[in-house]
Amino acid sequence: MAMEKIQNIRFDDTLLSSPYMKPIRLHFERRGMKLNWDIALEHDSVACILYHRERNALLFVRQFRPPVFVRKVRRLPENIGKGVHDIQWQEYPISLGETLELCAGLMDKQALNPLQTMAEEIAEECGYKVPEDQITLIKKFIPSVSISGAQQYMYYAEIDDTMKISEGGGNSHEGEFIEKVFMTLAEAKAYIDQEAVASPPGFLFAVKWFLSQKAGTVSKTPAKSTSSVIN
Amino acid sequence: MAMEKIQNIRFDDTLLSSPYMKPIRLHFERRGMKLNWDIALEHDSVACILYHRERNALLFVRQFRPPVFVRKVRRLPENIGKGVHDIQWQEYPISLGETLELCAGLMDKQALNPLQTMAEEIAEECGYKVPEDQITLIKKFIPSVSISGAQQYMYYAEIDDTMKISEGGGNSHEGEFIEKVFMTLAEAKAYIDQEAVASPPGFLFAVKWFLSQKAGTVSKTPAKSTSSVIN
Repeated sequence: MAMEKIQNIRFDDTLLSSPYMKPIRLHFERRGMKLNWDIALEHDSVACILYHRERNALLFVRQFRPPVFVRKVRRLPENIGKGVHDIQWQEYPISLGETLELCAGLMDKQALNPLQTMAEEIAEECGYKVPEDQITLIKKFIPSVSISGAQQYMYYAEIDDTMKISEGGGNSHEGEFIEKVFMTLAEAKAYIDQEAVASPPGFLFAVKWFLSQKAGTVSKTPAKSTSSVIN
Repeated sequence: MAMEKIQNIRFDDTLLSSPYMKPIRLHFERRGMKLNWDIALEHDSVACILYHRERNALLFVRQFRPPVFVRKVRRLPENIGKGVHDIQWQEYPISLGETLELCAGLMDKQALNPLQTMAEEIAEECGYKVPEDQITLIKKFIPSVSISGAQQYMYYAEIDDTMKISEGGGNSHEGEFIEKVFMTLAEAKAYIDQEAVASPPGFLFAVKWFLSQKAGTVSKTPAKSTSSVIN
């Protein structure tokens, strides 16, 4: 699995129209100057830091992110200066594009509010059914100020084995293959203390928030000896 | 200034070609499924949390971010369901699109490495010339895993009045109007403790990092009574 690769890779750099990202150029004038800014509109999103009580562990997700794969492969020494069409993409393992993230999702269903979206994502990606009144908003912020401007709602929730409804894993029929990753609090601290992480800054903030605000108040039972990667 | 507006606003939603953002669609196959993902390639970036020794304060920047303005105006009740061409953009103050951020910049000059880019941004935006060996890398992460995949280098630096070379403010001839914002440590803590912030999560992480890792080790002189916004 570590060396899994993707196949038949090609890029289309003509006009995009997409349910997930809409490029648009804003022209405007400010203080007498004609200016413009290129924007990639995207949906607002939700993310949740999940604490599993019996395991005394945090639950994250690992997944393949095509933009991270593309950016990282382009940054390799042998590809510097090459156009995207000139790179031997099929030679690189998808692990280059794998990230460790909070359970998260886009708010792309108009009928669902942020909290409902979050509950649905926790069920789909991680397989736990958490009552909405046990999912607490901890912060709203703007992940990408320079390109999309969308907002993220960040939540905290505690889970336990009574809430488990499935193995999670995302919508595999849509090509979403999500791996659950449990980490003890010490493992999570060691992970964010690394100099480089394949994670977004919201992840770093949420773990730091949990360790400083919550870790002392949750279950005092010692962490079970467990492999850090499940499922 | 608070009610400053922008004028002659129009959107161009045809093909983009931009030095800052390149939309591209990746087609690929994984586990036998044909998939695709829309990506907005952007440059890697740098950001720095700046601590001013004599003021015993952190230095941030406030600026107008068009993507945040567009997203926030579209989210207003009167604009729900409207297309971008149908919104009365000129009626809204630019303050809706203003963010509080770390001093930061894109790595869009090939001749400069991340550290050199950071030193240049600190000088341009904030007006302090910091020796490169006094700018410390604290973390590398991926701000946008779902749309750009670019990496951010986050730094820490201390500044003092001997390093001041200008008032900063960015490249005003390129339409960049950057306001310096000094905050005492208590003010910074109160800011990030709010439920909603017009800031990116990297900002939240950096302030939390500073308060937990650095605040006890830096100058113990009490903060001067100062207005929180300078320049």
